[in-house]
This record gives sequence, structure tokens and C-alpha cells, in this order.
Amino acid sequence: MKNADHLTGITTTGTPHLGNYVGAIRPAIESSREANRQCYYFLADYHAIIKCQDPARIRQSALEVAATWIALGLDTDTSIFYRQTDIPEIPELTWILTCMTAKGLMNRAHAYKAAVADNEAAGRKDLDKEITMGLFSYPILMAADILMFNARKVPVGRDQIQHLEMTRDIAGRFNHQFGEHFILPEAVVDETTAVLAGLDGRKMSKSYNNTIPLFETEKKLRKLIMKIKTNSLAPEEPKDPETCTLFAIYKAFATREETAAMAARYREGIGWGTMKQELFEYLNEVLKGPREMYNELIKSPGDIDAVLKKGAIRAREYSVPMLDKIKKAIGIQAL
Amino acid sequence: MKNADHLTGITTTGTPHLGNYVGAIRPAIESSREANRQCYYFLADYHAIIKCQDPARIRQSALEVAATWIALGLDTDTSIFYRQTDIPEIPELTWILTCMTAKGLMNRAHAYKAAVADNEAAGRKDLDKEITMGLFSYPILMAADILMFNARKVPVGRDQIQHLEMTRDIAGRFNHQFGEHFILPEAVVDETTAVLAGLDGRKMSKSYNNTIPLFETEKKLRKLIMKIKTNSLAPEEPKDPETCTLFAIYKAFATREETAAMAARYREGIGWGTMKQELFEYLNEVLKGPREMYNELIKSPGDIDAVLKKGAIRAREYSVPMLDKIKKAIGIQAL
Repeated sequence: MKNADHLTGITTTGTPHLGNYVGAIRPAIESSREANRQCYYFLADYHAIIKCQDPARIRQSALEVAATWIALGLDTDTSIFYRQTDIPEIPELTWILTCMTAKGLMNRAHAYKAAVADNEAAGRKDLDKEITMGLFSYPILMAADILMFNARKVPVGRDQIQHLEMTRDIAGRFNHQFGEHFILPEAVVDETTAVLAGLDGRKMSKSYNNTIPLFETEKKLRKLIMKIKTNSLAPEEPKDPETCTLFAIYKAFATREETAAMAARYREGIGWGTMKQELFEYLNEVLKGPREMYNELIKSPGDIDAVLKKGAIRAREYSVPMLDKIKKAIGIQAL
Repeated sequence: MKNADHLTGITTTGTPHLGNYVGAIRPAIESSREANRQCYYFLADYHAIIKCQDPARIRQSALEVAATWIALGLDTDTSIFYRQTDIPEIPELTWILTCMTAKGLMNRAHAYKAAVADNEAAGRKDLDKEITMGLFSYPILMAADILMFNARKVPVGRDQIQHLEMTRDIAGRFNHQFGEHFILPEAVVDETTAVLAGLDGRKMSKSYNNTIPLFETEKKLRKLIMKIKTNSLAPEEPKDPETCTLFAIYKAFATREETAAMAARYREGIGWGTMKQELFEYLNEVLKGPREMYNELIKSPGDIDAVLKKGAIRAREYSVPMLDKIKKAIGIQAL
């Protein structure tokens, strides 16, 4: 099995929404169609349990995320699509890397520092209050996810660049001590990727509770779109497309020509009711096919399991010999 | 497979010495002979790599430790004797427990606090200097070692009581959240277990470089015993057995009657040369048989491997279904 040219993990705590699709799923699936590129995609359920201790949610989210990616056209024959928890080599490598990671490196991680700052702001004496070792050390798990498959490029958002730097640091330290075993991965930040606004105009995110799930029923999708916040300009008044959530969502799905035409209609003064109805119809048209497939898939969890198990077998064709090599390098081998 | 009544791990960084034998190996082997008691013993090589980054040393120590325990009479049919790194479920459980462990708990670990105190004493600005995440988080690995096999009793030295308390804390938190899956283990501190002094009179320990390896050649053993520090009392002068390293070592091996007789000879004024010779002869008699067996074993690493592999298969009869149960409890299961 080939090492990973691209690798992407999806934390399984939520239900995929339009923002996930535009920001992560669509570019990943497009990228997987490029020739000569081995893509690894995984359900990051060992990351999910850091923040979510609701077993039903963890399971349901894994199901929804997997069904979503398949329904949206991920080619699971060319790509390697697996569950992190099906690859025991990942936690094994995590521990090995834990021994090579400076504690000071973790002290500087953004997520940890943000949690400490929250405790500070709340006037708590114990700055580590409510902080788990999962939150503190997950950058090592992330390093193992990446280094396990010697991933060359990891598409990330701006907020994740630090994780890649940490992975490089840990890998570099290992290579220096035990020989060149790991490829130092590169972060790929796609500045053109859209960040979608949600119902309230802020970034669409589960934590803001402002999302439009990808595969709601037609009725529910319509209802959610009707709820999107707009300003109070009357029909006929000219409107600014660039500051409008409806337009932003439309633009994320429409062609360049369609987008330009719609912008013109904004300036002519399209009514909010009309625009919402048109956006609903446009999205519904795009999502109808995948939604049907999603609904079929979700009824057959066993089939999704089979796809993931197939992916795990392929991923382990790389991870098993790789871990073996790493263990030998540190002195853990047949006596 | 039955859960562990007793469980003991041996870090594989050094060469077993008399102090290890008296303080840990002998009591463990004796304990394993009690009826109806399922003992688990393991080479803690995932702990070894925290402090030792010399692959040859790691490998050699695993070989020596395994050969030592077998040569000294460990019954590997009744006991389960395995290498930690042969049980992938242990690092898997380690990560799961990492998500259930408060960072504050690790902040209070003795080993970590001692390392910080060293940095403080050296006037270093960065109190985490040279401290790895391995040192910081190994109490979680230790918890996984114990909880993986639902060990009821863990024989420990005084300095390890805190680790057991942490294990209980982590297990309790997991049980509270996800149901009663883990037995809360008890520390067993055997106050009668001898702590052996080394060549210089301090506690025999690899870190003091004052050890007498168990299976040196007869010649080397004699030489080392001759080097043990004594006071400058002349032959014929009465001597205090209780403050004498030679006597302490003798006592750790001899019967009660032999010990009493030797104490009488101290008070009558045994000469140091005579005592050293007698101690050598006594020890040599005890160690001769096991030494021969050890030397045979060490020549056949493949045979030792086979013993450990057999142990791993038996250990995994418990750990595989146990981990499966734990994963299901947190929501990681077939979709």
C-alpha cells in the first residue's frame, strides 16, 4: 500500500452540515479524484471522545459522517476510507511519540492555552480545572494519525497549522534519534475554500447551533433556509450581495455565471422571500440525489461498516509494517 | 481467561540484580505459586522507552529480564508472562483513559514534580525543561496496564502507592460515566520485603551504579562481593550485624537459623575477609543452578520469544474482549 499523499480526519461528534460540505468534504472529494494521488480519509473517533462522552452520539455521528461522504461521491475504491479506532497501530504509535514529545510543546498548544485562558477569565484558582489529558495531549494523537501513513500533505484550516508544526517537530526529534523513518508532512492551507455563514450570520458551526444539516428532509431544509437572518430592506430596494448570508450560501454552490446573475438581481432589489425560495430550490436540486442515497445508506449500517472495514484492511497494509519498523528502530522487536 | 489477581510489571532498561531479586522477583514468583491465584507478569517495554532511547539496551534488557524470571522458576504455564508491547489493546486503552484523566491529576504525580523541582533547583526558567510527555503521562499507561486485566491486587513499593491511587481515580471516573466496567485495584505494600543495600551501602539500584547483577560469572560475583564497603574494624573486634551491608545481603537469602548463627559470629568478631568469602559461597550456591539455566536461555532468544508470545496469546484472551466491551461503552462499536 502506498503512503498518503493527502490525509484528512473527520471528528465524529456532529451531524454533517452545509459548512462542512463546502469547507472540507467537497474539496477533499475533489482532491481524491486527481490522478496518482493516494488519499486517506478517516473518521476520527479517538478524537471525538475527547469532547463527547455520549456513546449514542459518538456512534450516530460516525454513521452519519460515513454515510455523508459516501453519498456525496467519495470513491472508496481509490481512496482509503477508515475508522481511526479500527487501526490499533495508531494508539501504539501515539504512545511511542508521547515518549519523544517535549511537555513544553504541549504547553504551547492553542486549544490548551485557550482552555487555560477561559479558567483565568473565570477567576478560577486551578487553571487546569476541567481540562483533561485528552485535550492536553491530542496533538500527539494527531501526529500519529499523520505519521502512521507518512502523509505528505495535510489540508488544514488556519487554526490547525500549529498541529502540523508540532507533528513536524515530533517527527524530527524521532528521526534525529532513531534514523529517518518519518516524512515531515506539509500543511496545505487552501485560502480559496469558502467559510460558510450559518443561520445567524456567524460562521456555520455546531458550537453556535446555527447549522443547516446537509441531509434534512426537503421540508426541514426549506424551513431552515426561511429562518436565515437577513436585514430589513423591503423588496425592490437594492441589496448588497457581499454581506448577505443567503448569497454566500448560493455562491458556494452555484457556477460563476449563476453567481454573477444573482448578484445583478440583488442590486436590482430581489425580495428576501423570493431569494430564500430560490436558494432552497437550488440547494434542494443539488442535494436531492445525495440525500436519497444517504437515506438508503443510513438504513444499512452494516454496509457502511463493510466499507470502513475494507478501508481499515487497506490502511493496515501500510500501518502494520510501518509500526513494525518503528518498533524495531526503538529496540522493540523479536528477541 | 481469568482477570488478574496479582499483576506486576518489570521495566526493561537494566540488568536484573540481587536487589531486584529480593525486592520484587522472589516475592512475585512465590506469590504465583499460591493456589487459585492468577498472576500476570509483564515486561514493561512501553515504560522502558520513557527513559531509555538506546534500542540495543532496550532489546538486551528485555532478553535478560525474561531469562532471569524464567531461570528463577517462574511457572509460565500457570502465570501469564508477556511483553506489554505485544498487547496492542494496552495503548488503545491508554488513549481512552487519557480522555478520562484530569490534567490536574498528572500535575500532582511524584515523578513529574521531582523533575520540576530539579529544574527549579538548577535555576532553570523553563520548569518543564527536558521533561517529556512520556514522563508526564505514564501514570495513565500504568492505569491501562492494570485496568486492562481488571487486576485486583498490585504489589508495589511505597513510592508507587500514588500510581495505584491515580489508577483508582481514573477507573472511578470512567465507571461513573459509562458504568461499572473496571475493578478498582488495591495496592499491596509488603513491608517485610527486604530493600537490599548495594556495593556502597546505599539502596542497590541501577541509578547508583552499585548493583550486583544476579547472573554474573562466579569470578565476577566474587570480585563484586569483595568490593562491598565495610567499616575498618579489625578481625576479632565485635561487629554490629544490623548496620552491615554484607550481613543484610546474607540475611536476605539465608534461613532464620543461619541468620541468627551469623549474627552471633558478628558479635564474636568475624573478619571482613572471611565474611565476604562466606557470603560469596552462600550466594554462589543459591545462584549456581539458575545461572546455568539463565546462560542456556540467553543463548536461545527464540525460545524466550516463544514463551512471551504464548503469554501474549493468553493475556489477549482477556484484553481483546475487555477492550471491545470498553469501546462499546463509549460508543465505538460496529455501526
